[in-house]
Amino acid sequence: MANYHRLMVHPSTIDQLPTPALVVERSVFDRNLALMVEARPGDTLRPHVKAFKSTALAREMAAIGHQRFCTATIAEIEGMVAAGVGHDLLLANETLDYRRLGVLVEQGADITVAVDSDAVLAAVVAGGVRRVLIDVEVGLPRCGCDPADAGRLADAARAAGLEVRGVMGYEGHLMMVPDRDRRRDKVEAAMELLLDAHRDVGGDIVSGGGTGTYAVNEWVNEIQAGSYCLMDTQYATLEVPFEIALSVLADVVSVSAKGWAVTNAGLKSFGMDHGNPTWPDGELRFCSDEHSTLSTDVTPLRVGDRVRLLPAHVDPTIAKHERLWVVDGDHVIDQWPIDLRYW
Amino acid sequence: MANYHRLMVHPSTIDQLPTPALVVERSVFDRNLALMVEARPGDTLRPHVKAFKSTALAREMAAIGHQRFCTATIAEIEGMVAAGVGHDLLLANETLDYRRLGVLVEQGADITVAVDSDAVLAAVVAGGVRRVLIDVEVGLPRCGCDPADAGRLADAARAAGLEVRGVMGYEGHLMMVPDRDRRRDKVEAAMELLLDAHRDVGGDIVSGGGTGTYAVNEWVNEIQAGSYCLMDTQYATLEVPFEIALSVLADVVSVSAKGWAVTNAGLKSFGMDHGNPTWPDGELRFCSDEHSTLSTDVTPLRVGDRVRLLPAHVDPTIAKHERLWVVDGDHVIDQWPIDLRYW
Repeated sequence: MANYHRLMVHPSTIDQLPTPALVVERSVFDRNLALMVEARPGDTLRPHVKAFKSTALAREMAAIGHQRFCTATIAEIEGMVAAGVGHDLLLANETLDYRRLGVLVEQGADITVAVDSDAVLAAVVAGGVRRVLIDVEVGLPRCGCDPADAGRLADAARAAGLEVRGVMGYEGHLMMVPDRDRRRDKVEAAMELLLDAHRDVGGDIVSGGGTGTYAVNEWVNEIQAGSYCLMDTQYATLEVPFEIALSVLADVVSVSAKGWAVTNAGLKSFGMDHGNPTWPDGELRFCSDEHSTLSTDVTPLRVGDRVRLLPAHVDPTIAKHERLWVVDGDHVIDQWPIDLRYW
Repeated sequence: MANYHRLMVHPSTIDQLPTPALVVERSVFDRNLALMVEARPGDTLRPHVKAFKSTALAREMAAIGHQRFCTATIAEIEGMVAAGVGHDLLLANETLDYRRLGVLVEQGADITVAVDSDAVLAAVVAGGVRRVLIDVEVGLPRCGCDPADAGRLADAARAAGLEVRGVMGYEGHLMMVPDRDRRRDKVEAAMELLLDAHRDVGGDIVSGGGTGTYAVNEWVNEIQAGSYCLMDTQYATLEVPFEIALSVLADVVSVSAKGWAVTNAGLKSFGMDHGNPTWPDGELRFCSDEHSTLSTDVTPLRVGDRVRLLPAHVDPTIAKHERLWVVDGDHVIDQWPIDLRYW
């Protein structure tokens, strides 16, 4: 599939990169990791690989002490096991078929899965996975059991021979509450639900949080954050200390005298659910399948110029590409395959 | 990457499909193709592969008489040539590097590219492509030269030894004009610009249009439509005769007594630029990375139920998946690899 590798296998400078290209500024990425490891060292952070879907990137996190990871898909767990990155992998999500994970457990992989219903619990048992967290709904209308049902579900899991390691509850609806104090108060109320459930469930782990709440969630003992390492324009609106390390490099392929220029990165290069990407040097008017139209009112552009566009949402943007190009200024210093895609 | 194939290589019924899965209802697809081939037979339609990115699907179109195709990326042309599907392939888009296409031209492939500036023309010549269309801007703020500059550009192309086959102009801004008569009038005004340019340019081809304007654009001699074969909920709001053949099959993995259910298809399964996918049996409340939350006020759901969700925009949805599963009711009758992805 990687046709563009035919002509340029090892680009050494940004000018040589095939476009559209996902680019990671190494120095910014390193600063983001350093800020997080200081705030949440070792196992107090369980990086969420759904945000970056790359075992090479995950390896950077493992190297500075984060050895536990969480994932949203079975394919992400399979890829992490295959790459030998981290230990103690959590599927922080429900599915209906755990056989693919049971195979890995038999081979010695340390895998824990989230459980929020009897139906999922039965599938976990049938699939051969042995360790679970009880997934508790803490206000986000998505997965998670009623907090009042968590103890009963834990008892059922133990009765089925499973190890119940604790609870998880994702306060995803609070990630973007703008005011930090208000966000903290709301997170506290959500986490009270999780701690209530934890009293009934037992176990060592209380897992939750994300990039938006890592600094204010004092109630969990591990934070499930992933976006912090690359960031996006939405998270950058919060007062988190992380900076945007990720951009899409694009070529200007057409320029109109009427005041616009067109790049070759569009809807197939960007996750669009949080809105348009951002061009730092002017207005991005709209995206089409393989184009974005930029207003040249402020910054003139010529055919052949290269621009960097900033994604609004990192996770679905990553999932559209095959690799991350790691750069130091104009130099391409590495490439990280995005090898944890699909399901 | 295709981990889910480990356990189920050849599902024969929909129940056995790994989810999330892109599903094509064969009978609807066939009706859509039949309606279009009646309206725009043979070379009067130049199907746009960007909408479906599958050589297997394109082969179905070629089999009923559409042998000319257009594409938005070099990778799409390369894939079509490699699969031997169609002849007379048009890159209906501008790029900066035509060497990969020049290699194919040397090997005998019949490739034409769109040109809208001297810079792109120089790149075409340098890359070894010999046939061009002059790309004319007809109102959509994207690629295309000023209509008044088209003749000069054609002369420059001929002076450089290229064959100028005609013009193209995409009235993409008019695809969704709701009222058919009003749409027709606006298309006529846009196509007058294209025909003016054509008088200056010469050549046999006047190319344009899409699924939204195929029936009202009487001024081009080939229509560049692709979405019509699979459709999406946005195009379905028009009075076109095509029906939605494409859906994403998803599993219900969690159900709350508070009135919602959660499926395993989310932002990484759907192109989101035209908004949320549609659940025909109730409200789809929102999508997260790997989930969509459905309101169960109207239709109750249980863990393990399967639902079909309808994408709002076909092109970027297709680009997120590895294959299309072709079904006839509950039977899986074929799979079409989505082999024209990336750039």
